[in-house]
Amino acid sequence: MSTNDLLKQVAFIKEIDKLKYIQRRTKLFHSDRHENDAEHSWHLAMMTLVLAEHADKAIDVLRVLKMVLIHDLVEIDAGDTFIYDTSKNHSNTEEERLAAKRIFGLLPEKQAQEFMAIWEEFEAGITDDAKFARTMDRFEPLLQNASNGGGTWAEFKVEYQKVYDKKKAIKKGSTSIWAYAEHVLNESVEKGILRKDAPR
Amino acid sequence: MSTNDLLKQVAFIKEIDKLKYIQRRTKLFHSDRHENDAEHSWHLAMMTLVLAEHADKAIDVLRVLKMVLIHDLVEIDAGDTFIYDTSKNHSNTEEERLAAKRIFGLLPEKQAQEFMAIWEEFEAGITDDAKFARTMDRFEPLLQNASNGGGTWAEFKVEYQKVYDKKKAIKKGSTSIWAYAEHVLNESVEKGILRKDAPR
Repeated sequence: MSTNDLLKQVAFIKEIDKLKYIQRRTKLFHSDRHENDAEHSWHLAMMTLVLAEHADKAIDVLRVLKMVLIHDLVEIDAGDTFIYDTSKNHSNTEEERLAAKRIFGLLPEKQAQEFMAIWEEFEAGITDDAKFARTMDRFEPLLQNASNGGGTWAEFKVEYQKVYDKKKAIKKGSTSIWAYAEHVLNESVEKGILRKDAPR
Repeated sequence: MSTNDLLKQVAFIKEIDKLKYIQRRTKLFHSDRHENDAEHSWHLAMMTLVLAEHADKAIDVLRVLKMVLIHDLVEIDAGDTFIYDTSKNHSNTEEERLAAKRIFGLLPEKQAQEFMAIWEEFEAGITDDAKFARTMDRFEPLLQNASNGGGTWAEFKVEYQKVYDKKKAIKKGSTSIWAYAEHVLNESVEKGILRKDAPR
């Protein structure tokens, strides 16, 4: 290690503080207070520690933790994208890639490259680690919305099938968590907090 | 894994959401907004990823991450203790141990035992992993206060020697981070944002 590396790392540590100001659409459990990206990232890390045993494939827990801890840093520049927003495609926009280059680029080069690769792997969602990280990312707001009288599903009138289509990505990382998630979705329909229209 | 385990894990995941409401005395970088414990824990996890190479002894990064992610969960019941509060001894009060038993006790037994052991190890601060986790915990608010015109040092009129005595725990995990921390403390004195009284 060199002093120069430490100075770069401290600059990065200060810069990422901004994640605490990025508001998500979803709200805390049983609450009207919006969640921010830093809180969300911490919660996904905790869920990874607790739920790792439910992964269908062997995962590298440290690697998944890295993914969930850094996955939203690009939103410091690019802002939060709402998953049910039809006007904007979430995945890996040019704006997000530029943000990743700028923010990870504050770090010493070797670390910058490692973080960039981990973020790209999460975004691509192909490896078993990335699939499980994305399972965490979809599962947390599902639990939050179910606890909040429908949360963003009710607020933005998102219909069951659309929610189901987004949430089934949970299954790619864990069939047992997906079985539970399906149960929560069905329960939400029964409670009337998730709208299921007539068959189309 | 069993469905029963998953239900316990989901109960734990919901309960720990409360960490987002526990306010710390310190404030975000260059800000008047107080930091909460979930944001703080996320930031320590990021610092661990970025600064691990500065550890004096070989550390298990996954284990250190577990420590910093869970270290403040007991504050859901016990509240935040201000490091410069002279009326209350921070370390491992009976109140905190009861909180740990209740909160970790929501998990399946094997996980509850693992989390309890990791929290106890962090609190004891004896192992190399715990020393480095505590280095992170002391270093973040130092950087925040230095960016905030003295932050809690100025707000609560904490004198240089008292800050120095608390912060030198940083050295137990990393001599290079401590060298930088000392530099920041001296700079803070020069700037007049950390008060150095006449020799006693």
